[in-house]
Amino acid sequence: MNVLVNITFDGTNYHGTQIQSNADTVFSRFQNALVKVLGKPTDIKACSRLDSGVHANCFYLSFYADDGLDVRHLHFALNYHLPPDIRALGAEVVPDGFHRRYSCKGKEYTYYMWNSHTDNPFLEKYYYRVPQKLNVDLMNEAAQHFVGTHDFTSFMASNSKITDCVRTVSYAKVERDGDMVKFIVCADGFLYNMVRIMAGTLIRVGRGYIAVNDVKTIIESKDRQKAGVTVPAKGLFLSKVIY
Amino acid sequence: MNVLVNITFDGTNYHGTQIQSNADTVFSRFQNALVKVLGKPTDIKACSRLDSGVHANCFYLSFYADDGLDVRHLHFALNYHLPPDIRALGAEVVPDGFHRRYSCKGKEYTYYMWNSHTDNPFLEKYYYRVPQKLNVDLMNEAAQHFVGTHDFTSFMASNSKITDCVRTVSYAKVERDGDMVKFIVCADGFLYNMVRIMAGTLIRVGRGYIAVNDVKTIIESKDRQKAGVTVPAKGLFLSKVIY
Repeated sequence: MNVLVNITFDGTNYHGTQIQSNADTVFSRFQNALVKVLGKPTDIKACSRLDSGVHANCFYLSFYADDGLDVRHLHFALNYHLPPDIRALGAEVVPDGFHRRYSCKGKEYTYYMWNSHTDNPFLEKYYYRVPQKLNVDLMNEAAQHFVGTHDFTSFMASNSKITDCVRTVSYAKVERDGDMVKFIVCADGFLYNMVRIMAGTLIRVGRGYIAVNDVKTIIESKDRQKAGVTVPAKGLFLSKVIY
Repeated sequence: MNVLVNITFDGTNYHGTQIQSNADTVFSRFQNALVKVLGKPTDIKACSRLDSGVHANCFYLSFYADDGLDVRHLHFALNYHLPPDIRALGAEVVPDGFHRRYSCKGKEYTYYMWNSHTDNPFLEKYYYRVPQKLNVDLMNEAAQHFVGTHDFTSFMASNSKITDCVRTVSYAKVERDGDMVKFIVCADGFLYNMVRIMAGTLIRVGRGYIAVNDVKTIIESKDRQKAGVTVPAKGLFLSKVIY
Protein backbone atom coordinates (compact mmCIF):
# COMPACT_ATOMS: atom_id res chain seq x y z
CA MET A 1 0.00 0.00 0.00
CA ASN A 2 1.02 3.58 -0.70
CA VAL A 3 1.55 5.52 2.55
CA LEU A 4 1.74 9.31 2.81
CA VAL A 5 3.36 10.77 5.96
CA ASN A 6 2.99 14.41 7.02
CA ILE A 7 5.98 15.84 8.88
CA THR A 8 7.00 19.25 10.23
CA PHE A 9 10.57 20.33 10.84
CA ASP A 10 12.94 23.07 11.91
CA GLY A 11 15.42 23.13 9.02
CA THR A 12 18.12 25.10 10.87
CA ASN A 13 20.45 22.14 11.30
CA TYR A 14 19.79 20.37 7.99
CA HIS A 15 21.15 20.61 4.48
CA GLY A 16 17.67 20.63 2.97
CA THR A 17 15.36 17.74 2.20
CA GLN A 18 17.21 15.89 -0.54
CA ILE A 19 19.37 12.85 0.01
CA GLN A 20 23.03 13.89 -0.25
CA SER A 21 26.13 11.92 0.50
CA ASN A 22 28.00 13.24 3.56
CA ALA A 23 25.27 15.75 4.45
CA ASP A 24 22.77 15.62 7.28
CA THR A 25 19.37 16.13 5.63
CA VAL A 26 15.76 15.86 6.74
CA PHE A 27 15.37 13.11 4.15
CA SER A 28 18.23 11.00 5.53
CA ARG A 29 16.89 11.39 9.07
CA PHE A 30 13.44 10.30 7.94
CA GLN A 31 14.89 7.39 5.99
CA ASN A 32 16.82 6.18 9.05
CA ALA A 33 13.72 6.36 11.24
CA LEU A 34 11.58 4.54 8.68
CA VAL A 35 14.10 1.71 8.33
CA LYS A 36 13.92 1.22 12.10
CA VAL A 37 10.12 1.13 12.07
CA LEU A 38 9.69 -1.11 9.01
CA GLY A 39 12.76 -3.25 9.64
CA LYS A 40 13.97 -2.82 6.05
CA PRO A 41 14.92 -0.05 3.63
CA THR A 42 12.18 1.35 1.38
CA ASP A 43 12.18 3.80 -1.50
CA ILE A 44 10.84 7.18 -0.27
CA LYS A 45 9.52 10.07 -2.37
CA ALA A 46 9.21 13.67 -1.16
CA CYS A 47 6.57 16.26 -2.11
CA SER A 48 9.14 18.94 -2.81
CA ARG A 49 12.80 19.90 -2.61
CA LEU A 50 13.68 22.36 0.10
CA ASP A 51 17.01 24.15 0.42
CA SER A 52 19.36 24.13 3.37
CA GLY A 53 17.91 25.92 6.37
CA VAL A 54 14.32 26.14 5.07
CA HIS A 55 11.60 25.05 7.52
CA ALA A 56 8.29 23.27 6.97
CA ASN A 57 5.01 23.45 8.85
CA CYS A 58 4.02 20.49 6.71
CA PHE A 59 5.96 18.33 4.29
CA TYR A 60 4.86 15.05 2.72
CA LEU A 61 6.81 11.88 2.10
CA SER A 62 5.44 8.67 0.61
CA PHE A 63 6.55 5.07 0.31
CA TYR A 64 5.15 1.62 -0.40
CA ALA A 65 4.70 -0.65 2.61
CA ASP A 66 3.43 -4.17 3.16
CA ASP A 67 -0.27 -4.47 3.95
CA GLY A 68 -1.05 -4.62 7.65
CA LEU A 69 1.13 -1.68 8.66
CA ASP A 70 -0.57 0.24 11.49
CA VAL A 71 -0.83 3.57 9.66
CA ARG A 72 -2.88 5.27 12.39
CA HIS A 73 -0.07 4.96 14.93
CA LEU A 74 2.86 5.14 12.49
CA HIS A 75 3.75 8.74 13.42
CA PHE A 76 4.28 7.78 17.07
CA ALA A 77 6.73 5.07 16.04
CA LEU A 78 8.54 7.44 13.67
CA ASN A 79 8.79 10.18 16.30
CA TYR A 80 10.47 7.73 18.65
CA HIS A 81 13.35 7.48 16.15
CA LEU A 82 13.30 11.03 14.73
CA PRO A 83 15.21 13.93 16.34
CA PRO A 84 13.13 16.56 18.23
CA ASP A 85 13.44 19.09 15.38
CA ILE A 86 11.63 16.74 12.96
CA ARG A 87 8.16 15.53 13.97
CA ALA A 88 5.77 13.24 12.14
CA LEU A 89 2.20 14.57 12.47
CA GLY A 90 0.22 11.74 10.89
CA ALA A 91 0.06 9.17 8.12
CA GLU A 92 -2.60 7.88 5.73
CA VAL A 93 -3.03 5.34 2.97
CA VAL A 94 -3.37 6.95 -0.47
CA PRO A 95 -4.36 5.42 -3.85
CA ASP A 96 -1.62 3.60 -5.78
CA GLY A 97 -1.58 6.18 -8.56
CA PHE A 98 -1.09 9.00 -6.08
CA HIS A 99 2.28 10.65 -6.56
CA ARG A 100 3.26 12.87 -3.62
CA ARG A 101 4.89 15.35 -5.99
CA TYR A 102 2.89 15.33 -9.20
CA SER A 103 -0.47 14.90 -7.47
CA CYS A 104 0.23 18.13 -5.60
CA LYS A 105 -1.92 21.01 -6.94
CA GLY A 106 -0.06 23.80 -5.23
CA LYS A 107 2.20 24.88 -2.44
CA GLU A 108 2.02 27.80 -0.07
CA TYR A 109 5.17 29.36 1.36
CA THR A 110 5.37 31.94 4.14
CA TYR A 111 8.36 34.21 4.51
CA TYR A 112 8.72 35.82 7.97
CA MET A 113 10.32 39.22 8.50
CA TRP A 114 10.90 40.75 11.92
CA ASN A 115 10.51 44.52 11.58
CA SER A 116 12.32 45.85 14.63
CA HIS A 117 15.63 47.27 15.77
CA THR A 118 15.91 44.40 18.23
CA ASP A 119 15.91 40.66 17.64
CA ASN A 120 13.44 38.40 19.41
CA PRO A 121 15.56 35.74 21.19
CA PHE A 122 12.76 33.16 21.03
CA LEU A 123 12.11 33.43 17.29
CA GLU A 124 15.38 34.62 15.80
CA LYS A 125 16.03 31.31 13.99
CA TYR A 126 12.74 31.78 12.12
CA TYR A 127 12.75 35.22 10.55
CA TYR A 128 14.86 37.73 8.65
CA ARG A 129 15.16 40.98 10.57
CA VAL A 130 14.53 44.28 8.80
CA PRO A 131 15.29 47.20 11.15
CA GLN A 132 13.91 49.93 8.84
CA LYS A 133 10.16 50.60 9.01
CA LEU A 134 8.31 48.56 6.37
CA ASN A 135 5.16 49.88 4.71
CA VAL A 136 3.12 46.68 4.64
CA ASP A 137 0.20 48.17 2.67
CA LEU A 138 2.51 48.99 -0.24
CA MET A 139 4.16 45.56 0.00
CA ASN A 140 0.77 43.86 -0.14
CA GLU A 141 -0.26 45.95 -3.15
CA ALA A 142 3.01 45.11 -4.91
CA ALA A 143 2.56 41.39 -4.15
CA GLN A 144 -0.67 41.41 -6.20
CA HIS A 145 1.47 41.79 -9.33
CA PHE A 146 2.76 38.24 -8.70
CA VAL A 147 -0.78 36.79 -8.94
CA GLY A 148 -1.57 35.11 -12.26
CA THR A 149 0.47 33.24 -14.86
CA HIS A 150 3.85 34.87 -15.52
CA ASP A 151 7.35 34.07 -16.63
CA PHE A 152 9.22 34.45 -13.31
CA THR A 153 12.78 34.46 -14.74
CA SER A 154 13.52 37.65 -12.78
CA PHE A 155 12.77 35.74 -9.57
CA MET A 156 14.96 32.70 -10.20
CA ALA A 157 18.51 32.15 -8.92
CA SER A 158 20.80 33.07 -11.83
CA ASN A 159 22.64 29.72 -11.64
CA SER A 160 19.44 27.68 -12.14
CA LYS A 161 19.25 25.42 -15.20
CA ILE A 162 15.45 25.49 -15.55
CA THR A 163 14.23 26.79 -18.93
CA ASP A 164 10.44 26.89 -18.47
CA CYS A 165 10.00 29.69 -15.95
CA VAL A 166 6.25 30.15 -16.29
CA ARG A 167 4.36 29.57 -13.06
CA THR A 168 0.85 30.42 -11.84
CA VAL A 169 0.52 32.23 -8.53
CA SER A 170 -2.98 31.80 -7.09
CA TYR A 171 -2.63 34.24 -4.20
CA ALA A 172 -0.05 36.44 -2.53
CA LYS A 173 -0.35 38.72 0.49
CA VAL A 174 1.70 40.63 3.01
CA GLU A 175 0.39 41.03 6.56
CA ARG A 176 1.68 42.57 9.78
CA ASP A 177 1.21 41.07 13.24
CA GLY A 178 3.02 43.41 15.64
CA ASP A 179 6.70 43.38 14.71
CA MET A 180 6.25 40.29 12.52
CA VAL A 181 5.60 40.82 8.80
CA LYS A 182 4.52 37.77 6.78
CA PHE A 183 4.66 37.31 3.02
CA ILE A 184 2.40 34.43 2.00
CA VAL A 185 2.40 33.10 -1.58
CA CYS A 186 0.73 30.11 -3.20
CA ALA A 187 1.59 28.76 -6.67
CA ASP A 188 1.46 25.60 -8.76
CA GLY A 189 5.24 25.48 -8.55
CA PHE A 190 8.23 27.59 -7.59
CA LEU A 191 11.58 28.28 -9.22
CA TYR A 192 14.87 28.05 -7.34
CA ASN A 193 14.96 30.82 -4.67
CA MET A 194 11.75 32.33 -6.08
CA VAL A 195 10.04 33.13 -2.75
CA ARG A 196 13.24 34.52 -1.22
CA ILE A 197 13.83 36.83 -4.21
CA MET A 198 10.15 37.89 -4.17
CA ALA A 199 10.49 38.75 -0.46
CA GLY A 200 13.74 40.65 -1.09
CA THR A 201 11.96 42.66 -3.79
CA LEU A 202 8.93 43.40 -1.60
CA ILE A 203 11.25 44.65 1.15
CA ARG A 204 12.58 47.21 -1.36
CA VAL A 205 8.97 48.33 -1.92
CA GLY A 206 8.29 48.43 1.83
CA ARG A 207 11.35 50.60 2.42
CA GLY A 208 10.33 52.98 -0.38
CA TYR A 209 13.26 52.25 -2.69
CA ILE A 210 11.02 51.15 -5.56
CA ALA A 211 7.35 51.76 -6.38
CA VAL A 212 4.50 49.26 -6.28
CA ASN A 213 4.26 49.16 -10.08
CA ASP A 214 8.00 48.58 -10.49
CA VAL A 215 7.29 44.97 -9.51
CA LYS A 216 5.25 44.56 -12.72
CA THR A 217 8.16 45.99 -14.73
CA ILE A 218 10.61 43.67 -12.97
CA ILE A 219 8.50 40.61 -13.85
CA GLU A 220 8.28 41.73 -17.50
CA SER A 221 12.03 42.42 -17.75
CA LYS A 222 12.85 38.70 -17.19
CA ASP A 223 16.10 39.96 -15.69
CA ARG A 224 17.29 38.62 -12.32
CA GLN A 225 19.41 41.77 -11.84
CA LYS A 226 16.28 43.95 -11.65
CA ALA A 227 14.77 42.12 -8.65
CA GLY A 228 15.81 42.41 -5.00
CA VAL A 229 18.34 40.29 -3.13
CA THR A 230 17.77 36.68 -2.12
CA VAL A 231 16.85 36.99 1.56
CA PRO A 232 18.10 34.29 4.01
CA ALA A 233 16.60 30.78 4.06
CA LYS A 234 15.91 30.87 7.81
CA GLY A 235 12.74 33.01 7.34
CA LEU A 236 11.20 30.61 4.82
CA PHE A 237 8.55 28.04 5.70
CA LEU A 238 6.69 25.62 3.44
CA SER A 239 3.31 26.33 5.06
CA LYS A 240 0.81 24.30 2.98
CA VAL A 241 0.84 21.54 0.39
CA ILE A 242 -2.43 21.36 -1.52
CA TYR A 243 -3.51 17.98 -2.89
CA MET B 1 22.28 58.53 37.54
CA ASN B 2 20.20 55.42 38.15
CA VAL B 3 19.65 53.48 34.89
CA LEU B 4 17.04 50.76 34.38
CA VAL B 5 17.54 48.36 31.45
CA ASN B 6 14.81 46.11 30.08
CA ILE B 7 16.01 42.81 28.64
CA THR B 8 14.39 39.66 27.23
CA PHE B 9 16.05 36.26 27.15
CA ASP B 10 15.77 32.61 26.29
CA GLY B 11 16.89 30.96 29.54
CA THR B 12 17.52 27.51 28.01
CA ASN B 13 21.31 27.76 28.17
CA TYR B 14 21.65 29.66 31.45
CA HIS B 15 21.78 28.78 35.11
CA GLY B 16 19.23 31.43 36.04
CA THR B 17 19.72 35.14 36.60
CA GLN B 18 21.85 35.22 39.74
CA ILE B 19 25.61 35.66 39.78
CA GLN B 20 27.20 32.29 40.55
CA SER B 21 30.81 31.28 40.45
CA ASN B 22 31.57 28.81 37.65
CA ALA B 23 28.08 29.04 36.14
CA ASP B 24 26.98 30.75 32.98
CA THR B 25 24.10 33.01 34.00
CA VAL B 26 22.08 35.78 32.34
CA PHE B 27 23.41 38.11 35.02
CA SER B 28 27.09 37.34 34.28
CA ARG B 29 26.50 37.80 30.54
CA PHE B 30 24.84 41.16 31.17
CA GLN B 31 27.62 42.18 33.54
CA ASN B 32 30.29 41.37 30.93
CA ALA B 33 28.45 43.35 28.24
CA LEU B 34 27.98 46.35 30.55
CA VAL B 35 31.66 46.44 31.50
CA LYS B 36 32.50 46.61 27.80
CA VAL B 37 30.06 49.46 27.21
CA LEU B 38 30.94 51.52 30.31
CA GLY B 39 34.63 50.66 30.36
CA LYS B 40 34.54 49.75 34.05
CA PRO B 41 32.72 47.36 36.39
CA THR B 42 29.52 48.58 38.06
CA ASP B 43 27.26 47.12 40.72
CA ILE B 44 24.10 45.74 39.05
CA LYS B 45 20.77 44.93 40.71
CA ALA B 46 18.13 42.63 39.21
CA CYS B 47 14.33 42.90 39.51
CA SER B 48 13.92 39.26 40.44
CA ARG B 49 15.67 35.92 40.77
CA LEU B 50 14.87 33.42 38.07
CA ASP B 51 15.80 29.74 38.17
CA SER B 52 17.83 27.80 35.66
CA GLY B 53 16.05 27.44 32.34
CA VAL B 54 13.31 30.01 33.02
CA HIS B 55 12.72 32.57 30.24
CA ALA B 56 11.77 36.24 30.38
CA ASN B 57 9.78 38.40 27.98
CA CYS B 58 10.95 41.27 30.13
CA PHE B 59 13.43 41.50 32.98
CA TYR B 60 14.87 44.63 34.57
CA LEU B 61 18.38 45.37 35.73
CA SER B 62 19.58 48.65 37.21
CA PHE B 63 22.93 50.28 37.94
CA TYR B 64 24.42 53.69 38.65
CA ALA B 65 26.30 55.33 35.78
CA ASP B 66 28.11 58.61 35.26
CA ASP B 67 26.00 61.48 33.91
CA GLY B 68 26.21 61.90 30.17
CA LEU B 69 25.65 58.22 29.31
CA ASP B 70 23.58 57.96 26.10
CA VAL B 71 20.68 56.04 27.63
CA ARG B 72 18.51 56.19 24.49
CA HIS B 73 21.01 54.15 22.49
CA LEU B 74 22.41 52.06 25.34
CA HIS B 75 20.50 48.92 24.32
CA PHE B 76 22.14 48.91 20.87
CA ALA B 77 25.58 49.03 22.48
CA LEU B 78 24.65 46.26 24.94
CA ASN B 79 23.22 44.04 22.20
CA TYR B 80 26.50 44.28 20.34
CA HIS B 81 28.17 42.51 23.28
CA LEU B 82 25.30 40.26 24.43
CA PRO B 83 24.71 36.78 22.95
CA PRO B 84 21.71 36.40 20.56
CA ASP B 85 19.59 34.68 23.25
CA ILE B 86 19.73 37.77 25.49
CA ARG B 87 18.50 41.05 24.02
CA ALA B 88 18.32 44.49 25.60
CA LEU B 89 15.05 46.19 24.59
CA GLY B 90 15.58 49.66 26.03
CA ALA B 91 16.89 51.72 28.91
CA GLU B 92 15.70 54.71 30.92
CA VAL B 93 16.83 56.95 33.75
CA VAL B 94 14.87 56.33 36.95
CA PRO B 95 14.79 58.33 40.23
CA ASP B 96 17.61 57.69 42.69
CA GLY B 97 15.30 56.14 45.27
CA PHE B 98 13.95 53.68 42.69
CA HIS B 99 14.89 50.14 43.58
CA ARG B 100 14.40 47.68 40.69
CA ARG B 101 13.26 45.01 43.13
CA TYR B 102 11.42 46.73 45.96
CA SER B 103 9.79 49.37 43.74
CA CYS B 104 8.18 46.54 41.77
CA LYS B 105 4.44 46.30 42.52
CA GLY B 106 3.89 42.93 40.99
CA LYS B 107 5.06 40.32 38.51
CA GLU B 108 3.18 38.31 35.96
CA TYR B 109 4.33 34.84 34.95
CA THR B 110 3.02 32.76 32.06
CA TYR B 111 3.37 28.99 32.02
CA TYR B 112 2.98 27.38 28.57
CA MET B 113 1.63 23.88 28.07
CA TRP B 114 1.42 22.18 24.67
CA ASN B 115 -1.64 19.96 24.68
CA SER B 116 -0.95 17.50 21.89
CA HIS B 117 0.37 14.02 21.20
CA THR B 118 3.07 15.58 19.04
CA ASP B 119 5.73 18.14 19.88
CA ASN B 120 6.04 21.35 17.89
CA PRO B 121 9.66 21.45 16.66
CA PHE B 122 9.69 25.27 16.57
CA LEU B 123 8.46 25.83 20.13
CA GLU B 124 9.52 22.73 22.04
CA LYS B 125 12.08 24.61 24.16
CA TYR B 126 9.27 26.86 25.44
CA TYR B 127 6.49 24.64 26.74
CA TYR B 128 5.72 21.54 28.76
CA ARG B 129 3.84 19.00 26.68
CA VAL B 130 0.72 17.36 28.09
CA PRO B 131 -0.54 14.67 25.69
CA GLN B 132 -3.82 14.02 27.54
CA LYS B 133 -6.76 16.29 26.72
CA LEU B 134 -6.91 19.22 29.16
CA ASN B 135 -10.22 20.77 30.20
CA VAL B 136 -9.22 24.43 30.15
CA ASP B 137 -12.54 25.70 31.52
CA LEU B 138 -12.09 23.68 34.69
CA MET B 139 -8.45 24.75 34.98
CA ASN B 140 -9.45 28.41 34.68
CA GLU B 141 -12.17 27.97 37.33
CA ALA B 142 -9.67 26.28 39.67
CA ALA B 143 -7.10 29.06 39.09
CA GLN B 144 -9.57 31.58 40.59
CA HIS B 145 -8.95 29.97 43.99
CA PHE B 146 -5.40 31.38 43.82
CA VAL B 147 -6.70 34.97 43.60
CA GLY B 148 -6.53 36.93 46.86
CA THR B 149 -4.22 36.88 49.87
CA HIS B 150 -3.31 33.36 50.98
CA ASP B 151 -0.59 31.40 52.69
CA PHE B 152 0.89 29.53 49.70
CA THR B 153 3.01 27.02 51.67
CA SER B 154 1.46 24.17 49.64
CA PHE B 155 2.89 25.77 46.50
CA MET B 156 6.47 26.26 47.67
CA ALA B 157 9.42 23.93 47.05
CA SER B 158 9.79 21.85 50.22
CA ASN B 159 13.49 22.74 50.55
CA SER B 160 12.80 26.49 50.68
CA LYS B 161 13.85 28.39 53.80
CA ILE B 162 11.22 31.16 53.52
CA THR B 163 8.92 31.40 56.57
CA ASP B 164 6.43 34.10 55.51
CA CYS B 165 4.50 32.35 52.76
CA VAL B 166 1.62 34.83 52.46
CA ARG B 167 1.33 36.37 48.99
CA THR B 168 -1.42 38.28 47.17
CA VAL B 169 -2.43 37.05 43.73
CA SER B 170 -4.19 39.83 41.77
CA TYR B 171 -5.30 37.70 38.82
CA ALA B 172 -4.94 34.19 37.44
CA LYS B 173 -6.32 32.65 34.27
CA VAL B 174 -5.98 29.67 31.97
CA GLU B 175 -6.56 30.10 28.24
CA ARG B 176 -6.32 27.90 25.17
CA ASP B 177 -4.97 29.00 21.78
CA GLY B 178 -5.12 25.91 19.56
CA ASP B 179 -2.82 23.28 21.08
CA MET B 180 -1.19 25.87 23.36
CA VAL B 181 -2.61 26.25 26.89
CA LYS B 182 -1.41 29.25 28.92
CA PHE B 183 -1.58 29.74 32.68
CA ILE B 184 -1.12 33.43 33.52
CA VAL B 185 -0.72 34.56 37.12
CA CYS B 186 0.13 37.94 38.66
CA ALA B 187 1.11 38.47 42.31
CA ASP B 188 3.03 40.87 44.55
CA GLY B 189 5.63 38.15 45.01
CA PHE B 190 6.21 34.45 44.39
CA LEU B 191 7.65 31.65 46.48
CA TYR B 192 10.29 29.26 45.19
CA ASN B 193 8.75 27.13 42.37
CA MET B 194 5.29 28.57 43.13
CA VAL B 195 4.11 29.03 39.52
CA ARG B 196 5.44 25.64 38.45
CA ILE B 197 3.64 23.87 41.32
CA MET B 198 0.45 25.84 40.60
CA ALA B 199 0.66 24.73 36.94
CA GLY B 200 1.29 21.13 37.96
CA THR B 201 -1.80 21.28 40.19
CA LEU B 202 -3.98 22.86 37.48
CA ILE B 203 -2.93 20.10 35.06
CA ARG B 204 -4.35 17.58 37.56
CA VAL B 205 -7.63 19.51 37.46
CA GLY B 206 -7.57 19.67 33.65
CA ARG B 207 -7.05 15.91 33.42
CA GLY B 208 -9.92 15.26 35.83
CA TYR B 209 -7.82 13.75 38.65
CA ILE B 210 -8.94 16.36 41.18
CA ALA B 211 -11.95 18.69 41.35
CA VAL B 212 -11.97 22.48 40.97
CA ASN B 213 -12.66 23.00 44.67
CA ASP B 214 -9.84 20.68 45.71
CA VAL B 215 -7.50 23.57 44.89
CA LYS B 216 -9.05 25.56 47.75
CA THR B 217 -8.50 22.62 50.11
CA ILE B 218 -4.90 22.25 48.92
CA ILE B 219 -4.19 25.94 49.67
CA GLU B 220 -5.76 25.61 53.14
CA SER B 221 -3.81 22.42 53.94
CA LYS B 222 -0.45 24.27 53.81
CA ASP B 223 1.01 20.92 52.76
CA ARG B 224 3.31 20.71 49.73
CA GLN B 225 2.46 16.98 49.38
CA LYS B 226 -1.16 17.79 48.54
CA ALA B 227 -0.34 19.92 45.48
CA GLY B 228 0.74 18.69 42.03
CA VAL B 229 4.24 18.13 40.74
CA THR B 230 6.69 20.92 39.90
CA VAL B 231 6.47 21.09 36.12
CA PRO B 232 9.66 21.83 34.10
CA ALA B 233 11.26 25.28 34.06
CA LYS B 234 11.33 25.46 30.26
CA GLY B 235 7.61 26.36 30.05
CA LEU B 236 7.93 29.31 32.44
CA PHE B 237 8.22 32.94 31.33
CA LEU B 238 8.41 36.09 33.41
CA SER B 239 5.94 37.98 31.23
CA LYS B 240 5.44 41.34 33.00
CA VAL B 241 7.06 43.36 35.77
CA ILE B 242 4.74 46.01 37.12
CA TYR B 243 6.31 49.22 38.52
